Amino acid sequence: MHYADGRSTACEDVLPSQVAGCTDLNTTAFLYRVFRAEDPDLVVFTGDNIYGADSTDAAKSMDAAIAPAIDMKLPWAAVIGNHDQEGTLSREGVMRHLVGMKNTLASFNPEGIEIDGYGNYNLEVSGVEGTSMDEKSVLNLYFLDSGDYSTVPSINGYGWIKASQQVWFQQTSSSLQAKYMNKNPKQKEPAPGLVFFHIPLPEFSSFTASNFTGVKQEGISSASINSGFFASMVEAGDVRAAFVGHDHINDFCGKLSGIQLCYAGGFGYHAYGKAGWSRRARVLSVQLEKTDSGEWRGVKSIKTWKRLDDKHLSTIDSEVLWNRGSNGRRGKNPDGS
Amino acid sequence: MHYADGRSTACEDVLPSQVAGCTDLNTTAFLYRVFRAEDPDLVVFTGDNIYGADSTDAAKSMDAAIAPAIDMKLPWAAVIGNHDQEGTLSREGVMRHLVGMKNTLASFNPEGIEIDGYGNYNLEVSGVEGTSMDEKSVLNLYFLDSGDYSTVPSINGYGWIKASQQVWFQQTSSSLQAKYMNKNPKQKEPAPGLVFFHIPLPEFSSFTASNFTGVKQEGISSASINSGFFASMVEAGDVRAAFVGHDHINDFCGKLSGIQLCYAGGFGYHAYGKAGWSRRARVLSVQLEKTDSGEWRGVKSIKTWKRLDDKHLSTIDSEVLWNRGSNGRRGKNPDGS
Repeated sequence: MHYADGRSTACEDVLPSQVAGCTDLNTTAFLYRVFRAEDPDLVVFTGDNIYGADSTDAAKSMDAAIAPAIDMKLPWAAVIGNHDQEGTLSREGVMRHLVGMKNTLASFNPEGIEIDGYGNYNLEVSGVEGTSMDEKSVLNLYFLDSGDYSTVPSINGYGWIKASQQVWFQQTSSSLQAKYMNKNPKQKEPAPGLVFFHIPLPEFSSFTASNFTGVKQEGISSASINSGFFASMVEAGDVRAAFVGHDHINDFCGKLSGIQLCYAGGFGYHAYGKAGWSRRARVLSVQLEKTDSGEWRGVKSIKTWKRLDDKHLSTIDSEVLWNRGSNGRRGKNPDGS
Repeated sequence: MHYADGRSTACEDVLPSQVAGCTDLNTTAFLYRVFRAEDPDLVVFTGDNIYGADSTDAAKSMDAAIAPAIDMKLPWAAVIGNHDQEGTLSREGVMRHLVGMKNTLASFNPEGIEIDGYGNYNLEVSGVEGTSMDEKSVLNLYFLDSGDYSTVPSINGYGWIKASQQVWFQQTSSSLQAKYMNKNPKQKEPAPGLVFFHIPLPEFSSFTASNFTGVKQEGISSASINSGFFASMVEAGDVRAAFVGHDHINDFCGKLSGIQLCYAGGFGYHAYGKAGWSRRARVLSVQLEKTDSGEWRGVKSIKTWKRLDDKHLSTIDSEVLWNRGSNGRRGKNPDGS
């Protein structure tokens, strides 16, 4: 969102006809539009939620940025990017502020272990109440802090997800998989996992126009070093897609080694973009399997599309990100048979 | 070394004139030659010490392979490669056998933590006895198991160093650095670290002929995924060089982000190679600083060269891998001032 001071903060990279009166409030208005159209069960803010350097008061800026979700009583989660801490709050301070806000499902960090960064946590989505799945997490959401900038003198550029975070992620995934698959009713493959963080991984550079959906209009601004989080996700075995922010005018999803690597595309108006290329939001939709006897079971598919902040709030690039059995790990059919 | 059954195991890729009578015993003879010429304080075997598939008895093969070091009473360390476990011992079994052998400084794994692989350990080299450095480790050696093959269905090829190993490595490095730098006499930069494992990192592909010393005669057979160990070494801040085996006819060292990435080049005769291109061994030489008053202090430089198994046991590609102050981390001069 790159939110700053609200009404007094001008838009960047909009058409000449849109400049007059365009402010952070356009970002706010776009949030309300998408929320009303999609009625989401969860909102995820993928970092650079505020643009700290232009925010007079980082806490107030964050409150204003997130306000529409709270106002509409939507549960929400957030990770931090590389600009959130550039104002009156440190990275730690920004994350502490976020976890104290209303309706948030975000956490500061896991308890009892030492870990790099701020805002590494996971959320479990239970199966339907009253079914055999109601004590299982049928969908796992992982949130990680991908840092801001390198602190190693010999390495320039952006930050990265550290080994300590990867071990936490893998242990969490492994324990969730064991619970899901071993306990009654036993499941044949893990519940799908979705991962959210701010800075794209170097592996986002693996795609060409022929093997992704969406556009790539700028370079992949990943860290200049590969810290191995893609490998950790692949090893974990349950991750079906990862979602990042950071690059405003890339908005693609591409699949590598069974994992969809996705951008949303830029959302905020006080952020670089491309005049005439609408601000956008990625939407995820998760479907449950229903047995012949009518009982809801685990997740069978995950779909995505983007909403554009244009006249019709256009829906574009609809696609299936994952279907049960589609990764060939356990050779199931898309219908779960 | 790719050792198999000894006298009955033929050489690979030698000149027609060398084929007759060439066996694993040529590998043994080369070990003795190098040991006599260099009189090393420590020998490091960097994996594929035996070629399990051709070894009738893996334990006996390992005993025979390492025998010259034991015979000459040289302390030695080892990591395992991707071929050691192809015989009658598992990876765990091979490492357990190694740590039970005479004169070894190898360990099975760190105590008290869960870690991937077999043979992750470190060695400390104390400063000169009777000096102010005699309770400090002035040189740190790290040994890791880089695995054998991917066990993830969607990833082909070789194994990799996992996040759990990287966290152990970073914690070990961090604790060694704290001891070295904070305790009397305080030191301005960490003691140099050297890392040994079998499979090259993807970053070994970063070099062109213009920025390495040695040769690159085949592709870099790293894992097909980047698990981030290079990033972990750079983050740690004390590592000056990493040494691998695996590719027999690459023998270069190249420097990336302050770390020398080095091959030795193939040593063993029952291993692919290049006929007419001598088998070789990398030698490391570490120099201590001496103060004006004649007291030995920490390490001031690390040099390397290779010995060829030719008529004169030729020394080639001598170079300085690291000089105190040369990485610009703390802006010291090469003389330590």
